[in-house]
Amino acid sequence: MMRIDIITVLPELLESPLGHSIMQRAQDKGLVEIGIHNLRDYSVKKHKNVDDYAYGPGAGMVLQIEPIVRCIEALETERKYDEIIYMSPDGERFQQAMANELALKGNLLILCGHYKGVDERVREHFVTKEISLGDYVLSGGELGAAVVTDAVVRLLPGVLSDETSALTDSFQDGLVAPPVYSRPSEFRGMKVPDILLSGHEAKIEKWRFEQSLERTKLRRPELLKSNKR
Amino acid sequence: MMRIDIITVLPELLESPLGHSIMQRAQDKGLVEIGIHNLRDYSVKKHKNVDDYAYGPGAGMVLQIEPIVRCIEALETERKYDEIIYMSPDGERFQQAMANELALKGNLLILCGHYKGVDERVREHFVTKEISLGDYVLSGGELGAAVVTDAVVRLLPGVLSDETSALTDSFQDGLVAPPVYSRPSEFRGMKVPDILLSGHEAKIEKWRFEQSLERTKLRRPELLKSNKR
Repeated sequence: MMRIDIITVLPELLESPLGHSIMQRAQDKGLVEIGIHNLRDYSVKKHKNVDDYAYGPGAGMVLQIEPIVRCIEALETERKYDEIIYMSPDGERFQQAMANELALKGNLLILCGHYKGVDERVREHFVTKEISLGDYVLSGGELGAAVVTDAVVRLLPGVLSDETSALTDSFQDGLVAPPVYSRPSEFRGMKVPDILLSGHEAKIEKWRFEQSLERTKLRRPELLKSNKR
Repeated sequence: MMRIDIITVLPELLESPLGHSIMQRAQDKGLVEIGIHNLRDYSVKKHKNVDDYAYGPGAGMVLQIEPIVRCIEALETERKYDEIIYMSPDGERFQQAMANELALKGNLLILCGHYKGVDERVREHFVTKEISLGDYVLSGGELGAAVVTDAVVRLLPGVLSDETSALTDSFQDGLVAPPVYSRPSEFRGMKVPDILLSGHEAKIEKWRFEQSLERTKLRRPELLKSNKR
């Protein structure tokens, strides 16, 4: 079974994204175990602080090396990790292929930064993989950890039913998904394309493929280029 | 004051990410109002369903047009929206510049897809902006809505203190942030760079800039290219 441990100063922030819907059902079914660890439990200070000023002028607060290393080492007595991941806007950009790859691993440890980040020595000596959701800055690594966990866990066999299968998702075939429609077939004059109501499966599949291709050309032309390589 | 409304089938999933830390403080200070709306409250069916099978073979469940339009129209009786945003992996890629732009708007409405997404007619006729976190697929739009909300709200004046100011963040100057270090200056033989302990502010700033530039070259060379345009 896959195991994902997350180290954070805001465990309460991760509760609801990982405790509902597909993520909760995956855990209930025993397909993944998710452990959330409060970095403050590994503080070496009286008031449970885990941050301090950055060296140098005016650069804000930094998560200190000592509690992080204590926490990582405590978790490593329980299991070996395939990757120790740090969520950071300058990390490797998260992509579907990376999610697919991580879904094949056994144990992942995700460290969430906060404030101005973690002491660089943690990144140099302990972290094995740095991941960025994209070129934007968030208040902390918690939402990033939730996104990576969601993207990975939904790929584990048995997590999604056939109906919601990840195989027809965007990017899995190098294309974005085709448009989808549901009942009613007409709403205030806005109609579902006739082809979808035709019942002709082969023609519908052809239409979907053409739509996917068209939409990829329009919205993500670089996906088509990278497929050619 | 900025107002962000979010339409979702999983309101409970958004509770903790938007109800703690910086997001909660921003709301407490009256700098932003966030409303979370359960799409099921706008169902036209007895059992509060809001989804149905996609037209065509084997394509999963789709959020239907009718409850979504009912919900949007109900919210629009309260206020006009600058953007009606749909979170989708084939949307425009979210970037810091887009967060900066959205932070200047007044009222945002964010629609979260689920299952295979929403009926295409909603996207064509009601949505004004489609946003993707990146090239990966998540179980629903909720984490995306939380990410966009976090990235935008932290930019609002008064939300962050000087110490955590967004001005020194990655991307705001077209570069990724320099490494940061905090106490102790030596831990198990791993040392903080001497320059940071020198107390020489001008030299430290120069070093930080060089580190930012170096790291951007190495990790995000395309940021440097796009600056030249």
